[in-house]
Amino acid sequence: MSTAVSSMTVRSYVAGRWQAPSGPTAPLLHAATSEQVAVVGTDPIDLVPVLDHARSVGGPALRALTFHERALALKNLALHLNARRDHLYELSAWTGATRRDSLVDVDGGIGVLFSYAGKGRRELPNAHVLVDGPVERLGRSGAFVGQHLHTSRRGVALQVNAFNFPVWGMLEKLAPAFLAGVPTVVKPAAQTAYLSAAVVEEVVASGLLPEGSLQLVVGGTRGLLDLLAEQDTVAFTGSAATAALLRGHPAVQHRGVRFTSEADSLNFSLLGVDVEPGSPEMDLFVRQLVAEMTAKAGQKCTAIRRALVPERLVPDVVAAVDERVRARVRVGNPTSDEVTMGALVGLDHRAVVREDLDRLRRGARLVVGDPDRFDVVDADPTRGAFLPPLLLLADDPSRSESHEIEVFGPVSTVVGYRDTEHAVDLAARGRGSLVGSVVSADPDVVRDVVLGVAPWHGRVLVLDQESAAESTGHGSPLPQLVHGGPGRAGGGEELGGIRSVLHFMQRTAVQGSPRALSAVTGTWVTGAPRREGGTHPFRKSLAELEVGDTVTGGPRTVTLEDVDRFADLSGDRFYAHTDEVAAAANPFFEGRVAHGYFVVSLAAGLFVSPEPGPVLANYGLEHLRFLTPVYPGDALTVRLTVKRISPRVDADYGEVVWDAEVVNQDGEAVATYDVLTLVAKEWDR
Amino acid sequence: MSTAVSSMTVRSYVAGRWQAPSGPTAPLLHAATSEQVAVVGTDPIDLVPVLDHARSVGGPALRALTFHERALALKNLALHLNARRDHLYELSAWTGATRRDSLVDVDGGIGVLFSYAGKGRRELPNAHVLVDGPVERLGRSGAFVGQHLHTSRRGVALQVNAFNFPVWGMLEKLAPAFLAGVPTVVKPAAQTAYLSAAVVEEVVASGLLPEGSLQLVVGGTRGLLDLLAEQDTVAFTGSAATAALLRGHPAVQHRGVRFTSEADSLNFSLLGVDVEPGSPEMDLFVRQLVAEMTAKAGQKCTAIRRALVPERLVPDVVAAVDERVRARVRVGNPTSDEVTMGALVGLDHRAVVREDLDRLRRGARLVVGDPDRFDVVDADPTRGAFLPPLLLLADDPSRSESHEIEVFGPVSTVVGYRDTEHAVDLAARGRGSLVGSVVSADPDVVRDVVLGVAPWHGRVLVLDQESAAESTGHGSPLPQLVHGGPGRAGGGEELGGIRSVLHFMQRTAVQGSPRALSAVTGTWVTGAPRREGGTHPFRKSLAELEVGDTVTGGPRTVTLEDVDRFADLSGDRFYAHTDEVAAAANPFFEGRVAHGYFVVSLAAGLFVSPEPGPVLANYGLEHLRFLTPVYPGDALTVRLTVKRISPRVDADYGEVVWDAEVVNQDGEAVATYDVLTLVAKEWDR
Repeated sequence: MSTAVSSMTVRSYVAGRWQAPSGPTAPLLHAATSEQVAVVGTDPIDLVPVLDHARSVGGPALRALTFHERALALKNLALHLNARRDHLYELSAWTGATRRDSLVDVDGGIGVLFSYAGKGRRELPNAHVLVDGPVERLGRSGAFVGQHLHTSRRGVALQVNAFNFPVWGMLEKLAPAFLAGVPTVVKPAAQTAYLSAAVVEEVVASGLLPEGSLQLVVGGTRGLLDLLAEQDTVAFTGSAATAALLRGHPAVQHRGVRFTSEADSLNFSLLGVDVEPGSPEMDLFVRQLVAEMTAKAGQKCTAIRRALVPERLVPDVVAAVDERVRARVRVGNPTSDEVTMGALVGLDHRAVVREDLDRLRRGARLVVGDPDRFDVVDADPTRGAFLPPLLLLADDPSRSESHEIEVFGPVSTVVGYRDTEHAVDLAARGRGSLVGSVVSADPDVVRDVVLGVAPWHGRVLVLDQESAAESTGHGSPLPQLVHGGPGRAGGGEELGGIRSVLHFMQRTAVQGSPRALSAVTGTWVTGAPRREGGTHPFRKSLAELEVGDTVTGGPRTVTLEDVDRFADLSGDRFYAHTDEVAAAANPFFEGRVAHGYFVVSLAAGLFVSPEPGPVLANYGLEHLRFLTPVYPGDALTVRLTVKRISPRVDADYGEVVWDAEVVNQDGEAVATYDVLTLVAKEWDR
Repeated sequence: MSTAVSSMTVRSYVAGRWQAPSGPTAPLLHAATSEQVAVVGTDPIDLVPVLDHARSVGGPALRALTFHERALALKNLALHLNARRDHLYELSAWTGATRRDSLVDVDGGIGVLFSYAGKGRRELPNAHVLVDGPVERLGRSGAFVGQHLHTSRRGVALQVNAFNFPVWGMLEKLAPAFLAGVPTVVKPAAQTAYLSAAVVEEVVASGLLPEGSLQLVVGGTRGLLDLLAEQDTVAFTGSAATAALLRGHPAVQHRGVRFTSEADSLNFSLLGVDVEPGSPEMDLFVRQLVAEMTAKAGQKCTAIRRALVPERLVPDVVAAVDERVRARVRVGNPTSDEVTMGALVGLDHRAVVREDLDRLRRGARLVVGDPDRFDVVDADPTRGAFLPPLLLLADDPSRSESHEIEVFGPVSTVVGYRDTEHAVDLAARGRGSLVGSVVSADPDVVRDVVLGVAPWHGRVLVLDQESAAESTGHGSPLPQLVHGGPGRAGGGEELGGIRSVLHFMQRTAVQGSPRALSAVTGTWVTGAPRREGGTHPFRKSLAELEVGDTVTGGPRTVTLEDVDRFADLSGDRFYAHTDEVAAAANPFFEGRVAHGYFVVSLAAGLFVSPEPGPVLANYGLEHLRFLTPVYPGDALTVRLTVKRISPRVDADYGEVVWDAEVVNQDGEAVATYDVLTLVAKEWDR
């Protein structure tokens, strides 16, 4: 293994320049060889220029971009990093990670960027403000309405990360903050800070993110939160004890800093009561358990700490794990092809793991593996932080050790249970966990377990033969799903798609006249002024259209013949449209009614401008409600109003949402809906 | 005023029985006369039986009900309390409240119950679990999917309330917790605990809420949080200092108790730069300011503390406030018809207000009112906690006093500003507030102010002539809108419709096969088994239908004649349907395409069962997307599958949502949507 890198000094990236530590440094050692690979400063970093830069440069630059522009920047960054993975893999091996472990960290992190880039453009508007929920009518006449919106918090997103995922841990927090328009300051864990720094170097070199949107501070943590205030956010990943310490900081207690934490937890995996020895589910359970014990050498907040097994199956499970570990697991040099499990992050951490293991052994006994006797492949066992997978068995499931002591290494404990209710109670003894999983082929067992443990967990995975081939497994947080758990797990939520973007924004209820609300949200709301007359809005390009532009069509009188012809053409001869007597017997109708689909069809006939123009296609409909039955003889009028305009950042067209309202001759609303169209940005008449 | 009630002892309601204080008591005095009206115990209440009862009796009873059943119970409770308002008004006067103040507290509280009863039935399913967001596809084939759901937290909702709204403050926290299925423990402020207790007496006597779902603890607060843990929630209303104290409790720091607070704050009301003296907006601004200073004698967390006024208009505003106060405000006996402003809650509180006023006066001078000289109507000024409305003027807007010292009484400060940007900066000097308001007729001013202050506020009200008649005003939190603010205001969110129900639930991401996900959520998801054959699902009553029931219709070949006939009948002759050459020039089409509305119409023709049956009506459509163009010659097939079944609790029918998928001869999805129908609970064939 190379020693050429041993002089690397991990630098901070502050206010647009790289900054080497000015005070004392500490060495960082290779996990598998204990050779020095880098040094980090140990004095605390002065955060004043960092926060100033984020607040005065990064924040304004980010807030000037729309959600879609931010999403596009994330996509480009993901592509950039994707092309530079080899370099990151090299450094990742120093942390003790096998190639597969590095894939989870490096590719997993890049995957989060891709996911947020996609969701940002699909699920957020091309705007600076996000509307939340429907318009609420607050008075009788509709002249006073309310709506919620999200705006970017004016502060800084400080992330304090754990050592185990130096790439993923940084990027999974960066993506939602960036999308929200909030600049990020990364405080990596010292042990693996060189890898986080390598990613930041790539980010900076790429020039793809606005200056000030990402800074890196490597050094001591003293005083880290002292300067934070109301608009700032701290997202912490690490131990429950440190989380509690930070949560008690005056910035959080008194100055309203938004604090979320994601702490290690005593996650369970449960084998269903329905499972038989030798069944495919038994095999899935054991494979997943061994995979989670060995991946990242068990240094994962989401690893399975407690294997909940029906009492009668405990011997089978222990035997199967033992067999699989012997057959498949090779501990050693993480870059060696043969090796399936790398080293712990360092000898210091291994010493902690051994101590915790000793405490755990007061309530459980070792049944697979021996921490003092194991083979190491292609490495010096005295110089690397190696441990083998260790399975324990809690003979008394009610003892507290297995439910309370987390050994942050390749260590799990089998706990036998009597019935599903007992198992659900045992799962809750973790006092709140990030994730649980259940392996079962019985939908009733699945439902009872999932709904029973849900209040105690942020994520629950169900594993069965149907999903096994595609399942990403117990231990993998996904960008689409929330990551975090209640109670001991920290009480925070990360990821979960757009949900975590909102953590970096402020939700505000705005109330006033429809005109005022429209002015604020840039979206037309019922009661706001409509602009009518002049050019038909279907003949205006995206650049010319304005929110509030309206076309009125009709009236058109619906005849009985229309209804008959529509029944013939569609084939929809539902009695309410075709049989006067039967229709009148329906509690909602007084006789034959027009088809709802006919109403929206004729409405389109009344509002479209048929010649070729900038409106390219109707791609869908939302929120269609039929409010009043339409009887033959009713005369219908439609009003179509531009509600929202979203130009695409990377196409020559955009989405226009139209508010459609069909009323009858008495002014009663017959149908209301949103029409979704694609409209060209430019159009030559 | 009556002294007959002076022997009233405020009791706690614990574990199904009323419990008088066993230790020392303290007197509670009438705000306007200082006569003793009640006594409260001062020893801390033993919370062990309270929490046991809530956890073992209240929680299970509540969780056995569906959202709709809980909503119906809230509605019945609202009706019950509505009929008993007179008694509550009587007690409310003891707190110093005028009849109008009492209306806000009593009717306002009952209104929250009505609002949650309505929203619970309209916006939540008739189920125990709430699905959150769409199904996320997590793998290539669709065999591994995820979705979020909310389940009731297994703990207790402790509310710690302020003295100023003993009815509303309790009910606005009770309603969402109850709807979430979480039992409530109320800790009222001692000063006005008799009124909260009177409401609880009505609740208990009504028998409308399950036993254990509401308990009341009156007494000292020492040790209040000691027994709380991971699944419990504390919602606090009161001072920012006490909020910080409670947030620092080990239960919150280390045991993951979910803590939210809503603290008094330095709310602003801004007069727009566009406003001219003598204009209607000027008048609206002054009226609202005086109303907020006098309502509840200014003892409202939402009252206007800072009136931000363009520098040039400061003298006009001061003069107009002075005039209006002289003309309209009469301080005195709150039950007197002539009186428009009652007393502060007590002489002790008045002493605090006077002290805070003195501190505020270091940075601002009195311009309206005199705390030492004012008239009192129909009451002894030496025995009642009276104060007049007091307006101050901060000559230097940058001084900190007016932005930092909250005087919790009829006190506001005028602060002059230069331009909108300056005003937005001044608003932010409150370091996070519950509410701000802007009075302006200029949409650009409105937008700049609202978006500028939004990150610092939980609610922003826009007041103009259009909304004035219906506006509920700056100081009124509404059940539909969030109440709470960032930073100093506590960082919490209450109300906001269903948003606050979720505070009492745990969000969990569930991942697995579509079959597993369906079993857990009770909702069919794409890829889950469909049951086809046998009785057409339109011929099954709500009781017979099952999630997954499916009918397939088609294929039907779409002809050019169909497209022409549909264009004729609907009148929709958009070129893409009628002009081969023009259609082919459209970037999305290769030639004439069928109308999207025709596709959904013929799909209905393929899936409906036309004879009278339990399916009563199609009341709408959701999420319609046209995914692939349909060309003449394409053969379409539709599959309609029961997705969700929601029986109504108070009607003989319910909602059934169907998943509809139309595919072409190549199996490509042409259109996907949800069909919304009403289906009878019973049906005689």
